[in-house]
Amino acid sequence: MYENLKSRLVTLKSNRLFEFAVISVIIISALEIGAKTYELPGIMNQLLLGLDWFITVFFVVEISIRFIADHDKRNFFKNGWNVFDTLVVVVSLIPVNDSELALLARLVRIFRVLRMISIIPELRTLITSLLKALPQMGYVVLLMFIIFYIYAAVGSYLFADINPFLWENIAISMLTLFRVMTFEDWTDIQYETMEVYPLSWMFYMSFIFLTAFAFLNMVIGIVVNVMDKESRAEADRLREELASEQEPEPSMADLQREIRELKALLKDR
Amino acid sequence: MYENLKSRLVTLKSNRLFEFAVISVIIISALEIGAKTYELPGIMNQLLLGLDWFITVFFVVEISIRFIADHDKRNFFKNGWNVFDTLVVVVSLIPVNDSELALLARLVRIFRVLRMISIIPELRTLITSLLKALPQMGYVVLLMFIIFYIYAAVGSYLFADINPFLWENIAISMLTLFRVMTFEDWTDIQYETMEVYPLSWMFYMSFIFLTAFAFLNMVIGIVVNVMDKESRAEADRLREELASEQEPEPSMADLQREIRELKALLKDR
Amino acid sequence: MYENLKSRLVTLKSNRLFEFAVISVIIISALEIGAKTYELPGIMNQLLLGLDWFITVFFVVEISIRFIADHDKRNFFKNGWNVFDTLVVVVSLIPVNDSELALLARLVRIFRVLRMISIIPELRTLITSLLKALPQMGYVVLLMFIIFYIYAAVGSYLFADINPFLWENIAISMLTLFRVMTFEDWTDIQYETMEVYPLSWMFYMSFIFLTAFAFLNMVIGIVVNVMDKESRAEADRLREELASEQEPEPSMADLQREIRELKALLKDR
Amino acid sequence: MYENLKSRLVTLKSNRLFEFAVISVIIISALEIGAKTYELPGIMNQLLLGLDWFITVFFVVEISIRFIADHDKRNFFKNGWNVFDTLVVVVSLIPVNDSELALLARLVRIFRVLRMISIIPELRTLITSLLKALPQMGYVVLLMFIIFYIYAAVGSYLFADINPFLWENIAISMLTLFRVMTFEDWTDIQYETMEVYPLSWMFYMSFIFLTAFAFLNMVIGIVVNVMDKESRAEADRLREELASEQEPEPSMADLQREIRELKALLKDR
Repeated sequence: MYENLKSRLVTLKSNRLFEFAVISVIIISALEIGAKTYELPGIMNQLLLGLDWFITVFFVVEISIRFIADHDKRNFFKNGWNVFDTLVVVVSLIPVNDSELALLARLVRIFRVLRMISIIPELRTLITSLLKALPQMGYVVLLMFIIFYIYAAVGSYLFADINPFLWENIAISMLTLFRVMTFEDWTDIQYETMEVYPLSWMFYMSFIFLTAFAFLNMVIGIVVNVMDKESRAEADRLREELASEQEPEPSMADLQREIRELKALLKDR
Repeated sequence: MYENLKSRLVTLKSNRLFEFAVISVIIISALEIGAKTYELPGIMNQLLLGLDWFITVFFVVEISIRFIADHDKRNFFKNGWNVFDTLVVVVSLIPVNDSELALLARLVRIFRVLRMISIIPELRTLITSLLKALPQMGYVVLLMFIIFYIYAAVGSYLFADINPFLWENIAISMLTLFRVMTFEDWTDIQYETMEVYPLSWMFYMSFIFLTAFAFLNMVIGIVVNVMDKESRAEADRLREELASEQEPEPSMADLQREIRELKALLKDR
Repeated sequence: MYENLKSRLVTLKSNRLFEFAVISVIIISALEIGAKTYELPGIMNQLLLGLDWFITVFFVVEISIRFIADHDKRNFFKNGWNVFDTLVVVVSLIPVNDSELALLARLVRIFRVLRMISIIPELRTLITSLLKALPQMGYVVLLMFIIFYIYAAVGSYLFADINPFLWENIAISMLTLFRVMTFEDWTDIQYETMEVYPLSWMFYMSFIFLTAFAFLNMVIGIVVNVMDKESRAEADRLREELASEQEPEPSMADLQREIRELKALLKDR
Repeated sequence: MYENLKSRLVTLKSNRLFEFAVISVIIISALEIGAKTYELPGIMNQLLLGLDWFITVFFVVEISIRFIADHDKRNFFKNGWNVFDTLVVVVSLIPVNDSELALLARLVRIFRVLRMISIIPELRTLITSLLKALPQMGYVVLLMFIIFYIYAAVGSYLFADINPFLWENIAISMLTLFRVMTFEDWTDIQYETMEVYPLSWMFYMSFIFLTAFAFLNMVIGIVVNVMDKESRAEADRLREELASEQEPEPSMADLQREIRELKALLKDR
């Protein structure tokens, strides 16, 4: 009987309508999350509460179907997307009466929108490729962190007394330097410290150039890397094409063999 | 007689002077629109009103000529640019006495300047290629929208009481996040929420990195795509060139055939 | 005697020391211009005045040498850089007693620094390549101007009464839109108009996306264009290389001819 | 005995554990520098002082080991990284009692973090490649400096009386122009000068376009340069591959020789 149920669920899972229903419910849940940020009349709130329960139940059923219909149950939770989906659904099952946790419960519900990514294959590929690009720039990020750390330490030592709000300790200084890097009112910070250290413009200038240069380097690195892969793939295609075209043609060695046979014929006589 | 008129209009339409006249009137209409934004003496306003009527009549005549001179009248309105041109002209024909609608009428007249795009082929190609590039980045835009939506929901839940002007509901929050993305006074917003949630810098930081990363990805995607097309086209050109060069040359197989004929000659004797 | 002088000047002109002296004087003139922006004691001002006369005389002599030493005097002024050099020198010869024109005279002297570009060949090439890149993006610039013009007209019609300082007429509106494009306090402008037209965020949003998109397109266009030239040049190099390598090799046709001669030999017997 | 010690140190130096210990101490020294920016209780300060002595001694020992274990002592200090490491360690050995120099001593200690770069090979390569990219853009940087210098001179001549804080002399003007280039509250500066010179928007506009254009040119230059190297390397790989594939094949010339031998055979008879 279980096998019977399973085979039916497999059919259901691969049904286009099923997938459409899941995407629809995810969109509805996203709209519900958006609606909650508006001030609504009491009746609407009741409706949203009901809708919330419907979505939770729907998701529990959906995940169960996916699990039962899966052929290889041992590896079901080795897939990161399945773990993510299950976590989001399970957490929203926990009843929250405490008002303290109510905010947390609402926040968790927001992550349901992320299920959009796990359900649409194209978005999943996009995220995977984004994650793959990360290690590539690992050392540039480390270099940038070292630059930030050193400048934050210098900034904190020199400017902490001038404006503790911006330079009190190394953590706050790094936040301030990030602000300088985004050019957000950075001259106000500069003019303030230049009153005490007139040469402090060199601190900001060198920081901006260093980070801009490292950032540029990172971008170029990624572009070149992506292009390189593309051009290699293209070159491989070209080579294969050439190889397949040349096969029916007799090679130089074939001709040489035939000429030698001719010579042998002449000599034999 | 109609055929006579039509053939004359076809000649007129393909006349360089006709095209020059149309572009001139579009430029005049653009200047007129600009002039209206200045405060002008009464006489000038009268003149501009007259000019406006002249432009309207000219455009009606021009579109009529194009329509009559067109060989395939059924497909005339299947061309998006023709529809656009006709709409702009027809709408400005509607008489507006109501002062309420006067503003709308003025706004519609501004779109006449867009006819510049429909009349210059190079600009039309540019717009077409811009529109073609859109679907390419469809999924990245969807991903960005999901990121915006989730962050806006979180921002609205957490910060709505801190500053309702910026975080009241999800729509306003998304506008605020767009502002953060353009680095426009984003630290003021950050410092405000950090007073209540000291760790909220992580909210802004992660948002900036995610959107910057997704944006970078989009740009690289477009660049690679464009380059790829270019390099394919170049490779095709190379291949064709090689192919055309090799044609007059006898192939390996030709040589082999001739050598075999030689062998046959020797054997026959 | 004139020929004698000319040949001497030609030798002088091509002397490395002469070029070095000219560059030195240009640098001194740049330093003089910088020094004048500081408040200096009276004696220094006298010195600078003397220095200024020395530089003017030096430049007059230098240009004269260049002109006399030039073999093709008719085309001397067809070279844009020569015209520029001569203009800068001649204008600074005009005596200025009037205090009104004193400022203008000082401004003209600043352009002497630009002679640095005309004297260093690498900078000249750079400028030439910059100028060559301009027509490439002619149509994108025109498209951007049309976008600016239309948005400025709409902005001026709708927002002129809200803030005349920013939207009074089409020229001021275009300046404001350029400010929006650089993200400089653009949200202040937006919030102000959103109080009257709550949907005006669409005006700013669409404007930012359109200009960003057009700008991106322009950058990609230039990059692709430059790359294309590079890859064509590289492909040409490859082809030439292959061609030169194959030259000593007998062609297929050569072999065919030889085999046919063989056949003729056999048949003749 | 010295040889004995040296061989032991060579073994120690190439030990993975030794390298791991050095990196750990550098990280601890970085954390110590960070910790000092916080206000700490007296006991902690004592601990940090002890830690500081431990780090100093550790680094002295480490550099000594590196020096003794080095086979080619004459060239030890020809390596820039070794000089840098030794300098950082030696300077932090100088005892500082004077309170004036205390700040300087603290700043020097920060540079210990930079040893992270000299110890991790990947970061060292990154810095080397950054430094190599500098001369490439030498002339663009010179061009940008000339643009800055000329605009700063003009700005200082015209606007010094309007706002001495921003335009007092050429140095301050260049700082202001850098601010304009980063779009940081640049419209405030513009509106201020437009009150006196209504056309001064042309000054800012042209400056922004020129610098943006030169910057773009620089970026494209670097990208093209990097790509060019990549594609050359790829082309070389392709050529080598083709060459190695064709070697076993007889060349056209070989075939021609064999056919000629055939002819000789026939003629001889």
